[in-house]
Amino acid sequence: MTSFLRGVYHLAAWLLFFLPVWTLSEGRKLLVIPIDGSHWLSMQPVLEQLNQRGQEIVVVAPEINLWINPSAHYTMKTYSVPYTKEFLEEQHKTMGHKVFSQQPFLEKITSAFSKMRNITMILFHSCEQFLANKELIKYLEESKFDAVFMDPLFPCGQIVAEHLSLPSVYFIRGIPCGVEFHATMCPNPPSYLPRFFTGYTDHMTFIQRVRNLLVSSIEFLVCYLFYSPYEHLIKEFLHQDMTVPELFSHASIWLMKYDFVFEYPRPMMPNMVCIGGTICGQQKPLSQEFEAIVNASGEHGIVVFSLGSMVSEIPMKKAMEIAEALGKVPQTVIWRYTGEAPPNLSKNTKLVKWLPQNDLLAHPKTRAFITHGGSHGVYEGICNGVPMVLMPLFGDQMDNAMRVESRGAGVTLNILEMTSKDIADALNTVINDIRYKENIMRLSALHLDRPVHPLDLAVHWVEFVMRHKGAPHLRPAAHDLNWIQYHSLDVIAFLLAVVLVTTFISFECCLFCCRKCFCKKGRDKSSKSKMQ
Amino acid sequence: MTSFLRGVYHLAAWLLFFLPVWTLSEGRKLLVIPIDGSHWLSMQPVLEQLNQRGQEIVVVAPEINLWINPSAHYTMKTYSVPYTKEFLEEQHKTMGHKVFSQQPFLEKITSAFSKMRNITMILFHSCEQFLANKELIKYLEESKFDAVFMDPLFPCGQIVAEHLSLPSVYFIRGIPCGVEFHATMCPNPPSYLPRFFTGYTDHMTFIQRVRNLLVSSIEFLVCYLFYSPYEHLIKEFLHQDMTVPELFSHASIWLMKYDFVFEYPRPMMPNMVCIGGTICGQQKPLSQEFEAIVNASGEHGIVVFSLGSMVSEIPMKKAMEIAEALGKVPQTVIWRYTGEAPPNLSKNTKLVKWLPQNDLLAHPKTRAFITHGGSHGVYEGICNGVPMVLMPLFGDQMDNAMRVESRGAGVTLNILEMTSKDIADALNTVINDIRYKENIMRLSALHLDRPVHPLDLAVHWVEFVMRHKGAPHLRPAAHDLNWIQYHSLDVIAFLLAVVLVTTFISFECCLFCCRKCFCKKGRDKSSKSKMQ
Repeated sequence: MTSFLRGVYHLAAWLLFFLPVWTLSEGRKLLVIPIDGSHWLSMQPVLEQLNQRGQEIVVVAPEINLWINPSAHYTMKTYSVPYTKEFLEEQHKTMGHKVFSQQPFLEKITSAFSKMRNITMILFHSCEQFLANKELIKYLEESKFDAVFMDPLFPCGQIVAEHLSLPSVYFIRGIPCGVEFHATMCPNPPSYLPRFFTGYTDHMTFIQRVRNLLVSSIEFLVCYLFYSPYEHLIKEFLHQDMTVPELFSHASIWLMKYDFVFEYPRPMMPNMVCIGGTICGQQKPLSQEFEAIVNASGEHGIVVFSLGSMVSEIPMKKAMEIAEALGKVPQTVIWRYTGEAPPNLSKNTKLVKWLPQNDLLAHPKTRAFITHGGSHGVYEGICNGVPMVLMPLFGDQMDNAMRVESRGAGVTLNILEMTSKDIADALNTVINDIRYKENIMRLSALHLDRPVHPLDLAVHWVEFVMRHKGAPHLRPAAHDLNWIQYHSLDVIAFLLAVVLVTTFISFECCLFCCRKCFCKKGRDKSSKSKMQ
Repeated sequence: MTSFLRGVYHLAAWLLFFLPVWTLSEGRKLLVIPIDGSHWLSMQPVLEQLNQRGQEIVVVAPEINLWINPSAHYTMKTYSVPYTKEFLEEQHKTMGHKVFSQQPFLEKITSAFSKMRNITMILFHSCEQFLANKELIKYLEESKFDAVFMDPLFPCGQIVAEHLSLPSVYFIRGIPCGVEFHATMCPNPPSYLPRFFTGYTDHMTFIQRVRNLLVSSIEFLVCYLFYSPYEHLIKEFLHQDMTVPELFSHASIWLMKYDFVFEYPRPMMPNMVCIGGTICGQQKPLSQEFEAIVNASGEHGIVVFSLGSMVSEIPMKKAMEIAEALGKVPQTVIWRYTGEAPPNLSKNTKLVKWLPQNDLLAHPKTRAFITHGGSHGVYEGICNGVPMVLMPLFGDQMDNAMRVESRGAGVTLNILEMTSKDIADALNTVINDIRYKENIMRLSALHLDRPVHPLDLAVHWVEFVMRHKGAPHLRPAAHDLNWIQYHSLDVIAFLLAVVLVTTFISFECCLFCCRKCFCKKGRDKSSKSKMQ
């Protein structure tokens, strides 16, 4: 009987672990809580791949959004939100608003904070509506998901994950206040890791290091501005007192859109997985329209020009300056621009409302890429080995531009101060100075030489968390220490106290001995003198 | 003509980067500078795989060694050394010497240091002979290698790499003085990362944290003891003043025999690649002899018992205690032991001079693994999901045992104090308490669920370094800062000075104003009183 029971034990152990892991690796259920915009666009290929591998996906999104549409790859569930599509489009346009006009420093900062506040409030109100939607929450509770896949810019995903007791996987490039490093207990020395929006490289002057340290010390304020409204939602919905970084520390895996050909080398934690460049290698053949333009470009080839979807209109004076510059290069320029065409547009410049950016960059005739420096576009440039002229507009684009320029793979222009000559010179430089091509080709070769494609890596880790109900073996014990303990300040204080007390006691002992000695001598002397 | 030149430019760029990377990815030349012992045994499979993929491998080893033998997978070059095989075997045996006898603390420490000093001096004298061997050095200079693959316990490899201006890849589990973290600028907080030989887990009590900090603060002394003799060799051979950690900071990739099911989660740098468990999945069918023993074991299955190759003899009293304990379990025990057989050996215990450890552990009838806790064996245990009874002897084995025990996958015994009952109890516990089997199966499932096999990952990164002549894009800028700059101490001092000066000036200004004010009042009063 005992041996029978033992046999059952061992069989149970095998069944418990290997069967769910290996035989049922397909057909699990994933809850996706994304945010709209470019973040959603880069998350989409991962979902498609997961769906192709047999995973069932449910995407929960606000009913009013720009790009999250129903698809055959997932079931879509929506919740109502207190704004209209027009309001959302207006807010989206506001992001690129005034980037072409000179603003006093204070106004610039206020405007940036105001834009940030707007996004925060849109997301926050969405979250409120999401959590208040009893029907949706009931559906989620009953749906038996295996994990939550989410964007940490929208903490609602983690609140729902906590409520459903589900492990979560995050998908992010970076959060301006560096919460990803606080939440993962990842060291982040300000001495060589430039903070968001500083535009510094990893080699800083003393003054830059001073500024970087100051910026890093006020990061918590930005975090507070961005995330503090959620704290009462956490309390209300989860009945727990928790800050957002504490909430985020429960994430199983952080899929970081990082690759060190682009990002500065830095410490990483075991639950951070670098998946920069998921788009790489996904190019499709060009449509007839674009194929014709490219073929007609002759030996000089083409230049791809796009400032992203947030800039629909460029002031006419600036647009004319750009058009003039583009007319000076022998290449054919394909310019994605939805605004009014500048009257001085040269014959070599083709204005289009939309362009297949990655497919065009992958074409061997592409000589250069004029971009605003969004990380998505920069990865496409690196992947396809196309040198860049960068015109950063806002957000992290200046940081991205600096990364490309510091590697000698592009030239950065100041969008407000650049003249027609600057643009033409920059274009000619990146096209004709072979070092730019060499550098971008080197970066491309390094970027493409990897043991697993980043998309497959992302899919692996989402499935890993679904299979194993999390990844607790990757959680550092640092989470169980407070700030003082983590930095060993209590231990240092204790050791200092021990040294001080020991020194004091030794000193007192010496003093006591000396006194004894001298007193004795004194007494001896005095007794001698008395005797005399 | 210009366009022709441009065409040549672009062609050159493509040829320069992609052709060498992709079309000539096979058939490069690798110089391997290993060290003898178990380190060599775990490096071997990587070399075999590299050779199968078409890489030409030259292994340079001392002519007197224990396990580095000629093979079809590589060309072997040797250099003479000032010791005999007998001396080396004696030194190897000394490692396991006296581990079964109680020693006073001071004697234990002295003996450990003396053993370490012996290894250091053997390696150092080998290095001296290697570098003095003009013929061998000339051969290496003329051989046009692409990279050096080496063990950093033997810094000679990096000295040669510097001399030949070659990039290097290191293969290591860990170095007792933590030089791998100093040399890579990898943060290593002593508050939750236990130091070598402490036997602590990542959850330490206050007193353990105090001790861990103290140990971490004397690590540099161990490094000095181990590596300082090489500094004059560096100066002599490379004509440079450089410490060994500085020398090691030039490594392109550190292949770390790490997996976080076994190691405690910690920060890692981008040029550290975790390849723990390369041996996994390489099991072969058992020989007839072992197959017969296993088949005859019946429903209870077998226990695999090995204390590694460094323990050839166990004192008879201890051996009899062990034999008595093994006789108490219903399993068949296969015990690898080269010493005199204890007279009380039970029928269920088969003494063998050698056993196919990994193949036996992979057998479904294996119920438990009694091991000294060498990392190689522990990975085999995890890989095959076999709960362990750990009898750590020396070196890092106590740390390894604590890692397994802290995860509930094994029981650790004190080799000096354990009684026959303790051993039998431990064996029965790990076999019959299903939690041990559950835990090791969970670890095994996590360990085996990876996007790339660690052996392929190791091979990829060695080939990567050969293809790209290094991996400079993974080198953090922290290497260009000194200790004060890295910790921002100069910036903090500057900011403090600014605050102090500002406070002082403000205070002085206030004081000046007050004085002015009071003086005026005083003057007013005195002039008034004079007027009165």
